[in-house]
Amino acid sequence: MSVRDRDSGKIEAVASGDGGLLTILCGGGAFPGAVAEAVQRRGRRVVLFGIRGFAEPAIVERYPHEWVYLGAAGRFLKLLRQHGSRELVLVGSVHRPRLTEIRIDWTTLRELRRYLQAERRGDDHLLSFFATELERAGYRVRGAHEVAPEILMPAGVLGRHRPGPAEEGEIRLGRQTIAALGPLDVGQSAVVVGGRVVAIEAAEGTAAMLERVAGLRASGRLHAGRRAGVLVKAPKAGQDRRIDLPAIGAETVRQAAAAGLAGIAVEGGGVIAADPQGLVRAADEAGLFVLGFEPGAGPKS
Amino acid sequence: MSVRDRDSGKIEAVASGDGGLLTILCGGGAFPGAVAEAVQRRGRRVVLFGIRGFAEPAIVERYPHEWVYLGAAGRFLKLLRQHGSRELVLVGSVHRPRLTEIRIDWTTLRELRRYLQAERRGDDHLLSFFATELERAGYRVRGAHEVAPEILMPAGVLGRHRPGPAEEGEIRLGRQTIAALGPLDVGQSAVVVGGRVVAIEAAEGTAAMLERVAGLRASGRLHAGRRAGVLVKAPKAGQDRRIDLPAIGAETVRQAAAAGLAGIAVEGGGVIAADPQGLVRAADEAGLFVLGFEPGAGPKS
Repeated sequence: MSVRDRDSGKIEAVASGDGGLLTILCGGGAFPGAVAEAVQRRGRRVVLFGIRGFAEPAIVERYPHEWVYLGAAGRFLKLLRQHGSRELVLVGSVHRPRLTEIRIDWTTLRELRRYLQAERRGDDHLLSFFATELERAGYRVRGAHEVAPEILMPAGVLGRHRPGPAEEGEIRLGRQTIAALGPLDVGQSAVVVGGRVVAIEAAEGTAAMLERVAGLRASGRLHAGRRAGVLVKAPKAGQDRRIDLPAIGAETVRQAAAAGLAGIAVEGGGVIAADPQGLVRAADEAGLFVLGFEPGAGPKS
Repeated sequence: MSVRDRDSGKIEAVASGDGGLLTILCGGGAFPGAVAEAVQRRGRRVVLFGIRGFAEPAIVERYPHEWVYLGAAGRFLKLLRQHGSRELVLVGSVHRPRLTEIRIDWTTLRELRRYLQAERRGDDHLLSFFATELERAGYRVRGAHEVAPEILMPAGVLGRHRPGPAEEGEIRLGRQTIAALGPLDVGQSAVVVGGRVVAIEAAEGTAAMLERVAGLRASGRLHAGRRAGVLVKAPKAGQDRRIDLPAIGAETVRQAAAAGLAGIAVEGGGVIAADPQGLVRAADEAGLFVLGFEPGAGPKS
C-alpha cells in the first residue's frame, strides 16, 4: 500500500501539538468528518460548528457540536468563547449561499464594508479575510491538513498503475498551465489529452470540467485512444493553504474515468482527499494511475 | 458608424496586390462567403474549393467552384494546377472530421507520418503544417484577413455602448489570462465577471464557454448584477495568423448577452467576424459594448 499509513508515529509527531479543544467550522461534504475523526484519533478534543445549509447533520451530530449561520459572526465568536476554544480549522465546501442561509448580525454588520470588499474578490479572499479577522481577535486558524495530515495526497506513484512517457509530458504541460494562471488567481486544475490542454478549470469546478471533457470526447471533438490524458491538480501559487487546498475524491476518479482519462496527477502534499486510500483503490479498480508529483521539481522544461 | 468603411481606399491599397486567381479553400460557416464577396468586390477573380461535409453548398455554388475531400491532397494539388492559381486562403471551420468525410489519396499517404505528427498537436498545427507544405510546393498561402481586411474587427469603441472602469479592469485581467496561456498553446478567450476570471476557453470553443457562464449565472454560483463582466478574445502569441484567427459573430453577441455579460473586448486587427458591422449592430441592440483594444498596449499592469 503506497498511501501513508494513517497510524504512523511520524505523522503523529508532526500533527499533534496540543492546542486544547479544536473547533472545526464545517461546510459541506465529507471532509469535516474525516478531519474530526483524524483529530479525535490523536486524542485531541473537538467541537464541530456546522454551518447551517452546508454541513451534513449526520456528520456534525456525531460529535459535540453547535449550529451556526453564515454571516452571524457575533454568535460564532460568543460560542468560541463559551467553549474556550482558541484554535480552529475551516473545512468543507461553502458555495455561494442563498439569502435565506445568511443571518447578518451586528458584529458582521460592523465589518460589512470590508467584508464586501473581500467578497467581491471571490470565495478564497472571503475565507482568507475571515481567517485573518479571527487571528486578529486572538484565535489561531490552522489548515485542516495541519491538524489531520491523513487527508493530504502524498507524493509518489500511489496506486497499481503508473503514467507512461506521454502522460509524463502531459502532466508537465498541465502543471505549466496551472503555474501560468496562479498569479491571476484562477486555474486549480487542467486536463491535457493528446499533448494538448483541452480544459482549464475556472469558476465551474473540477466536476463540471471533467463532464465537459467527457462531452467533447463523446462528440468526437477529441481524438484520442481509450484511456488517454491526465487531470492535473495543484494549489495556486500564493493560495492561502490554511483555508483552501484543492480537493479530490473517489467521485473525481469516477468522473476522470468517464472522461476517458488515463490518470490523475496532483501535487503531493498540496491536494486533499477525505479518504486518500479509498480514492487510490477506486483508481486501481478503474484502471487509472494516481500520481503525487513533487512540488519542488518545478514544472518548467 | 464606427466600423471601418468597407470601401475605404486605404484598405483597398493594403489588400489588393493582385496575385491572379485566388483559391479560397472553404470550411464551414459564413466566413468563406464573406471573404469571396470582399475579394471579388476588389475585382480579383476567385475560385472556391469547398471541403465536402464542411463548406455550405449555398455559398460555394454561388462562385466558380470545385468540391474536394479532406485528405485528398493529390486531387487538391491537381485542381490548383488546372486552375492555374498560385495563391490561396484557407477559411472556415473544419471540426474534427468523421472518417466518412476523409479520402486519403496517395499524395496524402506519402506524407501521412508527418501529417499524423502534426495532427497529434491539434488543429492549428495540422492546418499550419498543411499551409507550410503548400508553400514548399510553390504556392502562397495568405491570411483571409490579408485578402479581405473587411473581416477584421477594428480597434476602438465600436458601438453605442462603452466599457466602464470596472470593465476596463476586467478586460485587462482577461488579456493577462490569454497572454499567460499563449506559450502553452491554449486559451483563445476568457470571461471575467466581478473582477474574477470565471471561464477560460480550451477545446470546447467560445460558444460552449459562454453557455457555461450562463449556466453558472442561472444556478446562482456567480454573484453579479445584470449585465456584468466581459468576454475577452485575442489571438494566442505565436499563432499562425494565416490560417487561424479567433472569430466572433452575431451569435457570439447573443451568447454573451445570454451569459449576462456587459460587453465583448477583442484585439483590434486580431479577431475576425464575417460581418463586423452587423455584429456591432446586434451588440448595440442587445445593450452590450464592443471594444477593439490596441494590440500594442500590453495587458500587463
